[in-house]
Amino acid sequence: MAIERPTRPAARATGVGELFQLLRDGAPRTRAELASTTGQARSTIAARVELLLAAGLVSATGEAQSTGGRPPATFAFSPEVRVVLAVDLGATHARVALTDLASNVLAVAETAIRMDLGPTHVLGLVCALGDELLAEAGRERSSLVSIGVGIPGPVEFSAGRPINPPIMPGWDGADVPGIVHEHFAVPVLVDNDVNLMALGEHRSSWPDIDDLLFVKVATGIGAGIISDGSLRRGAKGSAGDIGHIAVDGAPAVPCRCGNTGCLEAVAGSEAIAAALAEEGIEVTGSAEIVALVRGGDRAAARAMRRAGRDVGTVLAACVSMVNPSMIVVGGGLAEAGEQLLAGIREVVYKRSLPLATHDLRLVASVAGTDAGILGASALAVDHVLSPQALDERLG
Amino acid sequence: MAIERPTRPAARATGVGELFQLLRDGAPRTRAELASTTGQARSTIAARVELLLAAGLVSATGEAQSTGGRPPATFAFSPEVRVVLAVDLGATHARVALTDLASNVLAVAETAIRMDLGPTHVLGLVCALGDELLAEAGRERSSLVSIGVGIPGPVEFSAGRPINPPIMPGWDGADVPGIVHEHFAVPVLVDNDVNLMALGEHRSSWPDIDDLLFVKVATGIGAGIISDGSLRRGAKGSAGDIGHIAVDGAPAVPCRCGNTGCLEAVAGSEAIAAALAEEGIEVTGSAEIVALVRGGDRAAARAMRRAGRDVGTVLAACVSMVNPSMIVVGGGLAEAGEQLLAGIREVVYKRSLPLATHDLRLVASVAGTDAGILGASALAVDHVLSPQALDERLG
Repeated sequence: MAIERPTRPAARATGVGELFQLLRDGAPRTRAELASTTGQARSTIAARVELLLAAGLVSATGEAQSTGGRPPATFAFSPEVRVVLAVDLGATHARVALTDLASNVLAVAETAIRMDLGPTHVLGLVCALGDELLAEAGRERSSLVSIGVGIPGPVEFSAGRPINPPIMPGWDGADVPGIVHEHFAVPVLVDNDVNLMALGEHRSSWPDIDDLLFVKVATGIGAGIISDGSLRRGAKGSAGDIGHIAVDGAPAVPCRCGNTGCLEAVAGSEAIAAALAEEGIEVTGSAEIVALVRGGDRAAARAMRRAGRDVGTVLAACVSMVNPSMIVVGGGLAEAGEQLLAGIREVVYKRSLPLATHDLRLVASVAGTDAGILGASALAVDHVLSPQALDERLG
Repeated sequence: MAIERPTRPAARATGVGELFQLLRDGAPRTRAELASTTGQARSTIAARVELLLAAGLVSATGEAQSTGGRPPATFAFSPEVRVVLAVDLGATHARVALTDLASNVLAVAETAIRMDLGPTHVLGLVCALGDELLAEAGRERSSLVSIGVGIPGPVEFSAGRPINPPIMPGWDGADVPGIVHEHFAVPVLVDNDVNLMALGEHRSSWPDIDDLLFVKVATGIGAGIISDGSLRRGAKGSAGDIGHIAVDGAPAVPCRCGNTGCLEAVAGSEAIAAALAEEGIEVTGSAEIVALVRGGDRAAARAMRRAGRDVGTVLAACVSMVNPSMIVVGGGLAEAGEQLLAGIREVVYKRSLPLATHDLRLVASVAGTDAGILGASALAVDHVLSPQALDERLG
């Protein structure tokens, strides 16, 4: 039996998009240096640098040391000229930011939304907010190059469409890019909110960690997987969907998915609220639970720790499966701090193999509530700066 | 909070290695076509094509249509000139093959080994077998460009060293590449056997499936993960190590890892043999169990189906986690056919979310006992044909 030739294209883009990748690290380079690195003709390089200058992606940064005669000009990536909109949609709120191409936040706003009013209504609000942010930051509409949107449900990434999202009635199969497009004529990228939180946390705080698992613990529980440095979405975009994994040893609590004993059903905020209700404590939502834990309530601390152990049971299997070197815990319940992390650590370090846990770090999210918009920004930026997109736009 | 610049190098190799990637698809091209695709000077291309011809990686394939004057020569990848050794080490046997750079098997041999005699002894045997295979195929030693080795335990991939391999006493931290190097002075790549089975199965039978999970079910149970088209090893090379995940609802059978209820302890061949022993049937090893099942023994079929359900319970979690579009089941117990697969399917389709199972296929390994050597061959070939390795060797 022989192995077929690789079917992925061997030919690389060698146009303006590829040239830009050389400049993306921000270091200034002369035309001569670019010609020598690429092996391409000086005239070809000069023409492509002009395209990048005109697009506002590269600027002249000064002059290199002269070896005699007029010193040659240097060029570098200028991430501050163009902007993207970063949208983080939750069940009841939207957080929208305007960032530059280095994901520096230029303006940010949050607003209450009702997802059940449907995509046209919600995305209309988001676009109006985008216009306000552009005005606030003093940027022209023409400087906007792309939009990233995170939504709280499964997404078919290539099409940008939600698929059977359980908490978003009216959104199944909605053409999110198409609706946003009617307002802003730029590329629109859509992904699951937890994937974007993972991407945002990774890029902003741990860019050198190639294998990272981000876990969101709130009403819903989900994960985003960074493997070999990139976000992995799986075949249908549902990778990291750990909220409905059965928890070994947990009670057979019915879950809204139809199965029993799912992680979300035994360790999400509703499960914690139900446990506290049995002790006569009425709470609603992650924030109230976190406030109780922080206020020193023992029953709440116990419930949180138990939830941590359930999350840890599932994460132990995930650690065996994908072998990350870091687990980052975020989401509303993570704000409770050590009680949740301690429960998770307890089980993960006990149940996973030594090789997988030897150098494993388990930490709370650094980006916190900004993880989602940072990830949406990174998604939007990565798209417009990719060789393919640049070749198409400028080449 | 801003996002740092990407830290991965933006600069691409643009030398002879990169040129070869264009030719790797096997299609014949003229020097002029290569110059036009890369934007590089005709003289640069001509010199690099000479290097590739001299290295035996490319050959002149004929002449293109002339547009007047002498028709230009065409060149293409010639995978049949150079060879690699592909080594698949098991607990008690070694399978070694000589393949060309398209992983066509030119000669193959299998021999009994005792891993407990240590790396120097075992790898000495393997190298001697390599010499015999070269002679059998009528190839010079100088045509050998690299060696791929699969071993039945965890491997620190970058160093090629086994790490605490439970069934390989004397191999912990052994410098496998160094030992093989004393006999064959070519690059030696080492990986876990299941990773290589996944790679071999993927390349030989399902090259267009980007997200594939390969599961080996035998005395040991493990998985190899293909995600976005590439094998993912995780931070320490232990990704896919699912044999010690706790099985939800399984009895607390003690496992050799120190925990209880691990998948391997409840569904590996030893667990099945123990279950059959209770019914008065004495068997040793996967092959005897498979023979019983194939012979129509009801107790064996029941035990196999139960093992399938336990494997399915863990795989359901894996499906939620990595969202493959295909699960391939291989290893000794998979030879039993439908009994094992039916048990796995039963649980996976029940316990995973619809989005993840909608287009999920669950099939038996096609490569079978060749999966390991095909993967070892692919690993060795990928290494020597990479842009970096070619630039280093020829550039």
